[in-house]
Amino acid sequence: MPDAFPFRYRAREVSRIEAFSDIVFGFALTLIVVSLEVPKTYSELIEAMYGFPAFALCFAILLWIWHAHYTFYRRYAIHDEFTLVINSLLLFVVLFYVYPLKFIFGGIFANRGHGAGNARVIFTIYGLGFAAIFLLYTLLYHHALKRSAELDLNLLERHDTRTHVYMFATDVAIGTLSVILAWTLPARLIGLAGFIYFLIGPAMGTIGWVMGSRRRAMEAKMVSDTSPA
Amino acid sequence: MPDAFPFRYRAREVSRIEAFSDIVFGFALTLIVVSLEVPKTYSELIEAMYGFPAFALCFAILLWIWHAHYTFYRRYAIHDEFTLVINSLLLFVVLFYVYPLKFIFGGIFANRGHGAGNARVIFTIYGLGFAAIFLLYTLLYHHALKRSAELDLNLLERHDTRTHVYMFATDVAIGTLSVILAWTLPARLIGLAGFIYFLIGPAMGTIGWVMGSRRRAMEAKMVSDTSPA
Amino acid sequence: MPDAFPFRYRAREVSRIEAFSDIVFGFALTLIVVSLEVPKTYSELIEAMYGFPAFALCFAILLWIWHAHYTFYRRYAIHDEFTLVINSLLLFVVLFYVYPLKFIFGGIFANRGHGAGNARVIFTIYGLGFAAIFLLYTLLYHHALKRSAELDLNLLERHDTRTHVYMFATDVAIGTLSVILAWTLPARLIGLAGFIYFLIGPAMGTIGWVMGSRRRAMEAKMVSDTSPA
Amino acid sequence: MPDAFPFRYRAREVSRIEAFSDIVFGFALTLIVVSLEVPKTYSELIEAMYGFPAFALCFAILLWIWHAHYTFYRRYAIHDEFTLVINSLLLFVVLFYVYPLKFIFGGIFANRGHGAGNARVIFTIYGLGFAAIFLLYTLLYHHALKRSAELDLNLLERHDTRTHVYMFATDVAIGTLSVILAWTLPARLIGLAGFIYFLIGPAMGTIGWVMGSRRRAMEAKMVSDTSPA
Repeated sequence: MPDAFPFRYRAREVSRIEAFSDIVFGFALTLIVVSLEVPKTYSELIEAMYGFPAFALCFAILLWIWHAHYTFYRRYAIHDEFTLVINSLLLFVVLFYVYPLKFIFGGIFANRGHGAGNARVIFTIYGLGFAAIFLLYTLLYHHALKRSAELDLNLLERHDTRTHVYMFATDVAIGTLSVILAWTLPARLIGLAGFIYFLIGPAMGTIGWVMGSRRRAMEAKMVSDTSPA
Repeated sequence: MPDAFPFRYRAREVSRIEAFSDIVFGFALTLIVVSLEVPKTYSELIEAMYGFPAFALCFAILLWIWHAHYTFYRRYAIHDEFTLVINSLLLFVVLFYVYPLKFIFGGIFANRGHGAGNARVIFTIYGLGFAAIFLLYTLLYHHALKRSAELDLNLLERHDTRTHVYMFATDVAIGTLSVILAWTLPARLIGLAGFIYFLIGPAMGTIGWVMGSRRRAMEAKMVSDTSPA
Repeated sequence: MPDAFPFRYRAREVSRIEAFSDIVFGFALTLIVVSLEVPKTYSELIEAMYGFPAFALCFAILLWIWHAHYTFYRRYAIHDEFTLVINSLLLFVVLFYVYPLKFIFGGIFANRGHGAGNARVIFTIYGLGFAAIFLLYTLLYHHALKRSAELDLNLLERHDTRTHVYMFATDVAIGTLSVILAWTLPARLIGLAGFIYFLIGPAMGTIGWVMGSRRRAMEAKMVSDTSPA
Repeated sequence: MPDAFPFRYRAREVSRIEAFSDIVFGFALTLIVVSLEVPKTYSELIEAMYGFPAFALCFAILLWIWHAHYTFYRRYAIHDEFTLVINSLLLFVVLFYVYPLKFIFGGIFANRGHGAGNARVIFTIYGLGFAAIFLLYTLLYHHALKRSAELDLNLLERHDTRTHVYMFATDVAIGTLSVILAWTLPARLIGLAGFIYFLIGPAMGTIGWVMGSRRRAMEAKMVSDTSPA
């Protein structure tokens, strides 16, 4: 159900920052999906097919990250030095984490086992990358919020921006918690550092529900305020 | 012969979705055409040249898929969440199927033989990818049809959109039929699961002929309706 | 010295066809320049450096081809089915010829010798690719010329378009001649099939000089025609 | 602190030259960051992680170069033949130096030792690439300065352009000096040819400080000139 008062897009055309970022995202997507060797025999082809679920998951994660980028620039169209720097860091982290991502999810689906010590390090690498990316988004959306007067954000748009800040900050917290658990849990419980990411769903749902209720209350108030007495 | 009343393009400029998709399509094309090793000796060069027909065919298939994408966004310029999700799935399937495509057509031209069991699996992989891509296009064009009022499609434009839905749905049916044949035919007839794709030509021709006749009838009626009495 | 009456650009913004083609050209450029292995030792680094002249030449050739593409779409901004098909063929040939190009020029600078039989084949591969690319450009520019009324080309613009057709057709002739020489010359003169490409400079210079003189005459006439009596 | 009278952007939309350059820059960035092999074992993953500082530094250098490109085309939007040629050379140097850059910084962080003779050559390669890139930028910005009347640059914008010319010329000087030192210093002091790049910080700071003071004086004068008496 679309919002009664949707977020207005401030971007009129694709900026060079967006186009440049898309090249990097597109390359990252491609590196996720394709292996570097064209299968030459039937068994290599079948093996490549077994990579499907890991590929699909990595692809979905990258597109999730891309979508937050897409939304940010469509909505706010900010191109100051601050966002340029944050965006550069974001591209760096995205590119740097492509191969670890592929390694980790490829390992899960291949039932590749790791000792507890290795698992701690792997959870740390994944958690740091995850937290870094969403920390950068938290900073970007918080930056937009600070400039809301300049961007002419209305009350609902400020509310939506705040919702994004809360959601991304929660992702940062979950990534950080996973790293902490990876180093404090006993070896037999180490898997919990991974299962904690399943908290994302309920957490996003809760934030979406609470902030969504408030939004609808604000919309209702706006409608009644602008209606004839 | 161009149409008397052509389909009006609703897109004014290249959207970020189109640009992003093109990066992925461009990568896929490139991966199809180039091998990963620069030939270092004369015989390697000659071997690379023998890849020409397989490369050309894969290239043509990918450009066919790209063209449906190009037409969709030029004509309808829809950028809602539904098309975003379908488009993401499309990019995933395209990237995922690049190497199998190259493998399969490379095999045909190299007269590489497969046992009947392997052939069944290869036809299944190809058929599923083929059907998936055109199912996604069927959904996209059907979505445009449902939103025809909002998009201000005139009668002819609705007709053209319906033509595309029929054509893509037929492609889905052919891909699915190939998979079914691959598992039901006896080993010595297994090749029919491949030859069935030659039905695409006549099928598209028939749909194009029937729907084209109707279009011309509609155009004639429009001209007579708007002519002075 | 810029023209008194320059060619007017009909393109207002970068079309999706141009953007898509640039991705393919950009990929081709990158494949030309980078090798697939990051040098790991000092001697590998030095070896990579010796690739400089071959890289520079291939890069220049690709950029020359790109520039003809750039000029075509900037000037005429034609996006009909014909140019779409020709452009697709062009991208295919460009991608397909990247590695042979790199192989051939890499061989020249490395003083890699070929027997006369191999040389015939190599000249044929290069000549066919060269002639194909410029044949496609000849067709594109000729197509623009045929549509000059529709595109509202003035007399000078038609003249400039004709100049391009002559130049590209000459490139086709030189490439074809090289292939013919490669198969008719005796082994000891086989190198002439390569040296013939040095004709490009004088040929382009002559066409440029003749057509440039005519253009200036046309400009002078236009100035005198529009001057007060 | 933003300038009271900022540089006005002359570019309205992303030109094809910028889009094409971004594809090449995006490839270069990606080649810097990713290795060509997805890590397959835990120890390969850890080894890839140790590449982090070298990757980060190369990434930062490339983005610094990209940013000068971005600023140039946003500000001046010049697309004449001269800038086209310089830009082509720039893309060539950027692509050609990606792997040496990765090699050199990878070596530093891996504490890979080189004999003095090899070090001289490595400093030469890096210095020539560094000087070439900034020489091309010096030429580009100097070209904009020469065309300041045509571009309608105001006094402050001419001043800012001059600041860029000074800064880039200083980078050229530092790169050249490093090459000279690499061939004149005794073996035990050869490292100085590398440390000289730390001069960039103070040099840029000094130019920025001097030119910034002058700019503020010019701004103050403009404000007082335009204020009511």
